[in-house]
Amino acid sequence: MRLYYGYNEFRKDVVDLAKMVEANFKPQAIVSILRGGMTLAHFLGLYWDTKEVYAINASSYGTDRKQGALIIDNVPKLKPTHKEILVVDEIVDSGRSFLGVMQVLKEHYPTAHFKSAVLFAHKSAHFQADYTLKEAASWIDFFWEVDTQGDHIA
Amino acid sequence: MRLYYGYNEFRKDVVDLAKMVEANFKPQAIVSILRGGMTLAHFLGLYWDTKEVYAINASSYGTDRKQGALIIDNVPKLKPTHKEILVVDEIVDSGRSFLGVMQVLKEHYPTAHFKSAVLFAHKSAHFQADYTLKEAASWIDFFWEVDTQGDHIA
Repeated sequence: MRLYYGYNEFRKDVVDLAKMVEANFKPQAIVSILRGGMTLAHFLGLYWDTKEVYAINASSYGTDRKQGALIIDNVPKLKPTHKEILVVDEIVDSGRSFLGVMQVLKEHYPTAHFKSAVLFAHKSAHFQADYTLKEAASWIDFFWEVDTQGDHIA
Repeated sequence: MRLYYGYNEFRKDVVDLAKMVEANFKPQAIVSILRGGMTLAHFLGLYWDTKEVYAINASSYGTDRKQGALIIDNVPKLKPTHKEILVVDEIVDSGRSFLGVMQVLKEHYPTAHFKSAVLFAHKSAHFQADYTLKEAASWIDFFWEVDTQGDHIA
């Protein structure tokens, strides 16, 4: 089973996720995991009207999502004023790359407070984000993955 | 006058811009200017099915787009295999930050070949991107700026 996740659902979910976060966390910076978190982090940065949007590379090189070495690179230079930082990705699959990213960021910035936010999470994941909007019960085709492919182009 | 630039136009424009680029350039990596280029770079990375998507921070701190110091930071670590690299932003306004980003990247990677791509450009800009899809004849409200604000939420 595959679920298509479209733009019109996303643009409302951004607001819901932002409200969930800001209820008890006021991030001074956003760190987007590349690539998956990019569109979400872009929208959140504008929703909160902050230019403090950064990125970090996390990739598993292998034949499927669970195999291969996890490479985390391009840890962003954050500012001393960044005490509360939100790390953003689109989904927690296994949780492996998110776990790695959070660990690396905490090592680099031991006095900062990092929280994590995603649109979707699988129940079986080994990592639980601080803010998760929806459960992923099936494979999700995100609009940024499929809307530029063949049949979806109107 | 303001132009609303919506998602349905964007998803087709991504394909048009990608085709314009790949006609004579085969990037092995994409560098997104933060924040503006994030959604476009995300879509291009998936369209070309590459995980080689990176980011760079460029911000003018001042009271409007033309004032203040230009700060370029978090120059990504690229790989020796990255010979042709596409730098992506949503629009060339004055061109100042794009000029600065291209200069910094070329200084860091003197043997790599950088080209630039944007959705929109103002005629009056001091920088001309290698690939520009459309002319910006007015102020543009991008969907990532306005679709999460008040009235746009259906």
